[in-house]
Amino acid sequence: MTTSFPMNDGNSAYSYFNNSQPQKELIDASKDMVRDAIIGKLDVEVMLSSSHTFRIIELGCSIGPNTFHAMQHVVDVVKEKYHNIILELQVFFSDHVENDFNTLFRSLPIDRSYYASGVPGSFHGRLFPTRSIHFAHSSCAIHWLSKVPKELLDEKSPTWNKGLIHYGTSNIDVVNAYIAQFEKDMEIFFNARAEEIVPGGMMVFISPFSSYIRLVEFFGSSLMDLVNEGKLDESLVDSFNLPMYFPSPQDMTKVVEKNGCFSIEFMELAYPKSKFVDETDAKTFIINLRAVLEGLLINHFGSKIAEEVCARTLLKSEEISTWMKANGGKSCQLFVALKRK
Amino acid sequence: MTTSFPMNDGNSAYSYFNNSQPQKELIDASKDMVRDAIIGKLDVEVMLSSSHTFRIIELGCSIGPNTFHAMQHVVDVVKEKYHNIILELQVFFSDHVENDFNTLFRSLPIDRSYYASGVPGSFHGRLFPTRSIHFAHSSCAIHWLSKVPKELLDEKSPTWNKGLIHYGTSNIDVVNAYIAQFEKDMEIFFNARAEEIVPGGMMVFISPFSSYIRLVEFFGSSLMDLVNEGKLDESLVDSFNLPMYFPSPQDMTKVVEKNGCFSIEFMELAYPKSKFVDETDAKTFIINLRAVLEGLLINHFGSKIAEEVCARTLLKSEEISTWMKANGGKSCQLFVALKRK
Repeated sequence: MTTSFPMNDGNSAYSYFNNSQPQKELIDASKDMVRDAIIGKLDVEVMLSSSHTFRIIELGCSIGPNTFHAMQHVVDVVKEKYHNIILELQVFFSDHVENDFNTLFRSLPIDRSYYASGVPGSFHGRLFPTRSIHFAHSSCAIHWLSKVPKELLDEKSPTWNKGLIHYGTSNIDVVNAYIAQFEKDMEIFFNARAEEIVPGGMMVFISPFSSYIRLVEFFGSSLMDLVNEGKLDESLVDSFNLPMYFPSPQDMTKVVEKNGCFSIEFMELAYPKSKFVDETDAKTFIINLRAVLEGLLINHFGSKIAEEVCARTLLKSEEISTWMKANGGKSCQLFVALKRK
Repeated sequence: MTTSFPMNDGNSAYSYFNNSQPQKELIDASKDMVRDAIIGKLDVEVMLSSSHTFRIIELGCSIGPNTFHAMQHVVDVVKEKYHNIILELQVFFSDHVENDFNTLFRSLPIDRSYYASGVPGSFHGRLFPTRSIHFAHSSCAIHWLSKVPKELLDEKSPTWNKGLIHYGTSNIDVVNAYIAQFEKDMEIFFNARAEEIVPGGMMVFISPFSSYIRLVEFFGSSLMDLVNEGKLDESLVDSFNLPMYFPSPQDMTKVVEKNGCFSIEFMELAYPKSKFVDETDAKTFIINLRAVLEGLLINHFGSKIAEEVCARTLLKSEEISTWMKANGGKSCQLFVALKRK
């Protein structure tokens, strides 16, 4: 069974709903690429069935509002492409069963021009009937692994990730353990999508890359601060690792080729508009990461430690800002457009 | 805009999830009829599209578990009918956007043999693409009106429903106001379903009838007890009416004929297995009604009065039991199977 890691739910101060601006910028930065994919590459026969329904899926939709923004763009471009056909659009918002679908549904745009549906379940598995989907979209989601590679917890192994919570500053064995898990997960992911997506249908991924990897380690260093102050047992940090791997273009090529059912139409590393260089930008980014990671932290360390770690990481905003500047001040994203052969 | 009246959410003592046994018995009593409809009457060409997907909708699914029970039965019978075709089944669980879909999704059967999806929105309107649905099922739901007929609140009208909360013991003008609202709602309902359901596709309704009508008035008499004790202002009771009308076979025939797109394949009044005659049965029934009505009561009277009304109605279980016995001790249901022409 897959473990799920929902974003902070509801609509409160640290909810994902109110702290997802960086993810919105990733989506905005990819708008032209999504458009190029649909207008230039999508090649499905939408007249096949008696109902002229074009079906779109969002994999890892979370609770909004970014997913509505992304889906409206896809819907608009699809309508533009098929302007000479009376087309009905159906959007399936999918995420783990633990996702807060109530918040998602209650914030669906009233003036939407598509039929909306929610699909609970892991994208590391089948979610839709065979050949029923024309376009799949996934933003800031495929980097979530189905689980933490278990060898990271083995004290006797070179993959033991002592004192760290991710692979950002780890040894190559740890990195390889993460890559192996990503490849295993993506094999299942691609097998499922290959069944679900019609020939000529497309799938686009927008995934954070580069600086994002290091940023999560600032939460790790806050945890280690608590260990050094004697407020937290180090074994608890050693047994905690984030279940996320940010794929490189090379990783992506490898998993796509292994599956064999999709062609890479285009793939590029891009930079969203914002730069996150000053201290205020860094704070925004840390609060956003909090909305993403807090559930995981609470689950492992309890809510008191989780709260403390988030607060301490926020105090590092100056350090983080300095580090961001030294690293070009830009957050980088991977964009991939794939076509079902 | 339609108003929504969700069942008590979550999984607590008075939740609908834990208090929906009477509705389960309605579903059980209709199993053979659902089977006869699918095996004997359903006539859809499931091979039309490139994906062999049979799509089922549940209208007014609430939060479970009854809806899973009903859908599994439909899925099993459809598979039996089309045993010579490799068929994939997709079930869309639909209810108002205020419905607790989180609870619904988290209790989906793990071993289900269909793709599950949730669709938020009122069935008094379009929910699905044109000609995309093969079978529609609705149990204990179509009696919910989109709103209370406003003339019930007009002191100067013969339809003023003074001192009552429903039409069970009301004058004929009140009854007619309810019927008129039901007909208006069903016109919209049938227009939507006529677009969504494929030719030869079917729709079945299971709706409580008869004794159920009077039972809700026991909640009304508890409210009037509070008025008579000076604890509640009568105008608050006068301005409260339940938005539900339990259609008779004649009502159903009329709305189906007005729409003209469906044929009535069979329609009958049936009796579920249980009799609800002794005091314990009556208590079960009152607690079930509480799970259904409490949200409406809280919304109008506040949670303190709502709690008091529910508690007082429970104390009337002996009186209710006596009344049930006098009325044959049976709860009656209307079953209708319709086919899209």
